[in-house]
Amino acid sequence: MSTLPSDVHLNVGALIFPEMDQADFTGPFEALSRIPNSTFYTIWKDLAPVPDMRDMRIVPDTTIADAPQLDILLVPGGYGQEALMQDEEVLSFIRRQAASARYVYSVCTGALLCGAAGLLHGKRATTHWTAMQTLPLFGAIACDERVVVDGNMISAGGVTSGIDGSLVLVAILRGDTVAQELQLYMAYDPQPPFNAGHPEKAPPDVLSTVSGRAQQITEARLKTARAYKAKWDRPG
Amino acid sequence: MSTLPSDVHLNVGALIFPEMDQADFTGPFEALSRIPNSTFYTIWKDLAPVPDMRDMRIVPDTTIADAPQLDILLVPGGYGQEALMQDEEVLSFIRRQAASARYVYSVCTGALLCGAAGLLHGKRATTHWTAMQTLPLFGAIACDERVVVDGNMISAGGVTSGIDGSLVLVAILRGDTVAQELQLYMAYDPQPPFNAGHPEKAPPDVLSTVSGRAQQITEARLKTARAYKAKWDRPG
Repeated sequence: MSTLPSDVHLNVGALIFPEMDQADFTGPFEALSRIPNSTFYTIWKDLAPVPDMRDMRIVPDTTIADAPQLDILLVPGGYGQEALMQDEEVLSFIRRQAASARYVYSVCTGALLCGAAGLLHGKRATTHWTAMQTLPLFGAIACDERVVVDGNMISAGGVTSGIDGSLVLVAILRGDTVAQELQLYMAYDPQPPFNAGHPEKAPPDVLSTVSGRAQQITEARLKTARAYKAKWDRPG
Repeated sequence: MSTLPSDVHLNVGALIFPEMDQADFTGPFEALSRIPNSTFYTIWKDLAPVPDMRDMRIVPDTTIADAPQLDILLVPGGYGQEALMQDEEVLSFIRRQAASARYVYSVCTGALLCGAAGLLHGKRATTHWTAMQTLPLFGAIACDERVVVDGNMISAGGVTSGIDGSLVLVAILRGDTVAQELQLYMAYDPQPPFNAGHPEKAPPDVLSTVSGRAQQITEARLKTARAYKAKWDRPG
């Protein structure tokens, strides 16, 4: 993949929303907000502080109505994603931006919002492991990988995957050296104290507890995804 | 290390400040805000939104004056740390909280604020690699490790090290299983696309570029640290 000329300015924007998982957004922000010759926008319906799932409040820079055309649209996830799955203002924003953006980048269950906006048909994609089974219902080819690039759709898996994906995206846009510079600045040389970050690696009791806690939202997401599939499958 | 009884409620708080590096705070927030039976506070001098180095604005929950006694004090870093090195309101807040906190947890150059507050004398500690040489000037034993635990002082290295350190801290407080549950929720099974996250691993030109960009702040930090050492070394 060839990178862009460095004199091409990039508008990078993130949809932020109530009950997002802040790390889906803040992890990528760390790298994407430092792309040379770029401007970053946090975007929501209005300019009031947006509380994440654990009530960290982030102030949007601009609104869905006022946001410029973006080159990169970042769509994070979190439990609040589910409340937006029928929100035409949000879905049409994603759709409209995606039509002219260079890349749409979903992190975690942000992929489900992209799915509801119709962006995943025939695309390889990933999401949080609890929601992986919803992807085919949006017409996607589910890939249990940490970062998936398919044309102009880039997706990262659960939460912290967004850091890896953002470095992949920076490398695509500005080259490997720029991505490595950001990695070194961020001291991203991870050493997790445990090896429990993937369902196949976690102890069974840990997997069972975490799956159980997510059961309600997982079922709601599946129901919504099935309704999308049924709507799209309906003849005429 | 034995964990606390699970019915012991924990107040967890983070000092946030202008031009902090948001990831020093938001990475740990992801795990620490999910510690069972705990309350999380973001803390600054007033309640206006606090802009990070790249102008992400986070709203504090409470003020330095109103914050409760914390069990865990998180001190992030970033270029804005340097402006606080003579700020008695901030340093005495850190000192006062540290006197009764169970743990003080510095991330990145937050360690330098802890150093200025006098918390590092004789302690093993780590910080961002660009600032490692300042640690001995604060009386610390500099350790080029990702996470260092010395008594009630826990420190993590640069930026993303804060994620690793927060899982170490959760394990100390609530046990390995709780930490593993959070790791699985966060899908923290990192796969950096490059191997450039530590000065010894990065290509020489990448190291040279990133060091060069940090030269001014690095020199300022060294000068400040030397002034602290001179003051503390003065007889009487």
